[in-house]
Amino acid sequence: MSALRIGVCGNGTVGGGTIELLHSQSDLLSSRAGRELRLTRVGARRDRDDCPTGDVPVHRDLLEVARADDVDVVVESIGGTTLAKEIVETALRSGKSVVTANKALIAEHGNELLALAEEYGQSLLCEAAVAGGVPILKALRDGMAANAVTELSGIINGTGNFILTEMGAHQRPFDEVLAEAQDLGYAEADPTFDVEGVDAAHKLSILAAMAFATPLNFSEVFCEGISGVTPADIQFADELGYRIKHLGIAKEHADAVELRVHPTLLPKDTLLASVDGVLNAVCLHGHAAGETVYSGAGAGRLPTASAVVADLVDIARAEGGSVHCLGVPVGALRAKPVMPMDSVCTAWYLRLQAEDRPGVMSQLANCLGAEGISIEALIQKPPKGAAATVPVVVLTNSAREDALRRAVTAIAALPAVTQTPHCIRIESQN
Amino acid sequence: MSALRIGVCGNGTVGGGTIELLHSQSDLLSSRAGRELRLTRVGARRDRDDCPTGDVPVHRDLLEVARADDVDVVVESIGGTTLAKEIVETALRSGKSVVTANKALIAEHGNELLALAEEYGQSLLCEAAVAGGVPILKALRDGMAANAVTELSGIINGTGNFILTEMGAHQRPFDEVLAEAQDLGYAEADPTFDVEGVDAAHKLSILAAMAFATPLNFSEVFCEGISGVTPADIQFADELGYRIKHLGIAKEHADAVELRVHPTLLPKDTLLASVDGVLNAVCLHGHAAGETVYSGAGAGRLPTASAVVADLVDIARAEGGSVHCLGVPVGALRAKPVMPMDSVCTAWYLRLQAEDRPGVMSQLANCLGAEGISIEALIQKPPKGAAATVPVVVLTNSAREDALRRAVTAIAALPAVTQTPHCIRIESQN
Repeated sequence: MSALRIGVCGNGTVGGGTIELLHSQSDLLSSRAGRELRLTRVGARRDRDDCPTGDVPVHRDLLEVARADDVDVVVESIGGTTLAKEIVETALRSGKSVVTANKALIAEHGNELLALAEEYGQSLLCEAAVAGGVPILKALRDGMAANAVTELSGIINGTGNFILTEMGAHQRPFDEVLAEAQDLGYAEADPTFDVEGVDAAHKLSILAAMAFATPLNFSEVFCEGISGVTPADIQFADELGYRIKHLGIAKEHADAVELRVHPTLLPKDTLLASVDGVLNAVCLHGHAAGETVYSGAGAGRLPTASAVVADLVDIARAEGGSVHCLGVPVGALRAKPVMPMDSVCTAWYLRLQAEDRPGVMSQLANCLGAEGISIEALIQKPPKGAAATVPVVVLTNSAREDALRRAVTAIAALPAVTQTPHCIRIESQN
Repeated sequence: MSALRIGVCGNGTVGGGTIELLHSQSDLLSSRAGRELRLTRVGARRDRDDCPTGDVPVHRDLLEVARADDVDVVVESIGGTTLAKEIVETALRSGKSVVTANKALIAEHGNELLALAEEYGQSLLCEAAVAGGVPILKALRDGMAANAVTELSGIINGTGNFILTEMGAHQRPFDEVLAEAQDLGYAEADPTFDVEGVDAAHKLSILAAMAFATPLNFSEVFCEGISGVTPADIQFADELGYRIKHLGIAKEHADAVELRVHPTLLPKDTLLASVDGVLNAVCLHGHAAGETVYSGAGAGRLPTASAVVADLVDIARAEGGSVHCLGVPVGALRAKPVMPMDSVCTAWYLRLQAEDRPGVMSQLANCLGAEGISIEALIQKPPKGAAATVPVVVLTNSAREDALRRAVTAIAALPAVTQTPHCIRIESQN
């Protein structure tokens, strides 16, 4: 079997790691892929000391790699969605398969790019785009092939999980931990993508498309960040048997899907609740396999490169046949409307400050009861010193979001309530 | 693409579940596999109400299915290693691929059967043999293809994990929980295979062969069961920050491998330590991906069938090409000697009864120190009522097993020690 000839565009974290693995593991890879995985071209706008390329030609014009005659597969690892998109399109149109770690590119342009790959009989794979070194897309596509996966949830942003873990472990405020995460290199200088959930929404849209066989639908993912979570919330959740995680959640109903990223209370005895620090984890609910959980490093040079190279092995083994990224041909995908958040049902955690006098609890209960929402648990703390108000935490049973919002508006209007309630959704399962 | 024609031998738990999924998910499977997965023959010694077969011919002679002209793949789901082996051999020699959930068959006869499959250009896959619905073999073979996986550990027997979880949660003795597990159908009437670790050793030998690219080596797996673990051990471990799990552990060294199944203390903050009840979980240490953990249902009709059908989809997608069960051709496997337990290094938990008088602790420390073993932690409980002896628990640093055994012999010979120490190994990582 002839070698699979690989052109890597980008020599930064992901590209450099990929080149390193192709060199250091070449015997292992040949044995597992059934043919040599040979690096034939590198595209890089400048050389880097941490990415030696040996005798392999290096192109400053990355599109030359995407067009080169001696390249069968292009690895796109430059990031962004402009030149990256052009590279992917050029490679596919030149009859080459593509492997990418670029979640933004796939989430935002995946529908047209996957259609283009199919038109040219090529594979476009992106295992590294979700949960780094954890082979979660292969688990969905191959391991769960016999399952209707109707629900999934995941910790798919390591930065956010690191921040929440640190806030909880040491009762430190969000801003302080974010600054530390930036110092440690876990968070970008502009942390918006991570802490506001955009990065998680990119990944969730890929997971959901694969699980439900729908087109990618990033633009309709509901997104709420973690900057509003306080150490006090984490402490109250702990007392009530929960941890707070920033989850991506997708659920399939008969005629709609839920796609949402938000802080979430999870029971402590679920596996996802035990996943701390920069780790990622995804829980799949298969109709046959039941709940399966996959966890590991969500980022980093070699974990991400591990996923890129695994995709290259898949393409090498397919021997010229193509691998459908989403598990089925693009023509077999069926669009489903995204459920408006108003009609999504979850249980809720509400935290508020109220005056410490008789009757307040029954007023709260009345506001919820008027919307058909019942109380599952309640904590009221004794006042601290001479404080006129006390913190009150309420856990509700499952309620439609619009009903909950109306109840919260009514609660905020109570004379005894001095602060608009802070609301966090609860998921009772993984 | 023509249909993949499937003959299922056995209509019990696994075979019945497989037939159910092939029927109920036929559209989904066609879409994902790129061709129809069509059940054409069933082999069953008797009909079962819970396994309707519709118009599909049912053979009382199972070998007829293995030879049938209209079968491309045989699913062996009768269990045992005699007729099952004959079915698999007959199918392979008749030019058919085979999917099986039979861990004993693969662990004990896999080397010859995999060679036979390769000789006839067929696939022999066994995802369902390890960790039921968790696609752990695909994770190793495909997801970790770019990694040298040099270490793995797993909770790979749900019965044992259920028993240890119950013993710990309610301080109940082994025998009582085992009887309950038998009532619940989690444990067989003869529980030896589960509680003595034979079943886990079967699975460990498959995982290790795939991870290290060695031939299967079930007969040399060291095996220690959980019947010696007491509720007191679980309680002491808890006080020291550990949980006790029955683990299968495989490690690769430059010139040897470790293959062992035994009760193990795991730090509470590892993910495996949080995996309770009948769940299974496996942790892989890849040189590039780092630690990844996979968890889910280790047994049951549909979880196991989910894995069988995923193998069928793999075979359907390979379009006549074969899939190497262990990730590489049999000829690329390299035997490595199994390290004798005497030279295996682990940390240890020791529990003993000693007289409550001065100097005993220093005698203990001397026995360990004479073998170069240092003490990491120690618990001595106050005597209960008029008892003359007290329980003492010692955690050691890492030590060779022969040195530890000599130290324990010396400790047991101390006049103040009234009971041979009970010893459990500790793993500090997942």
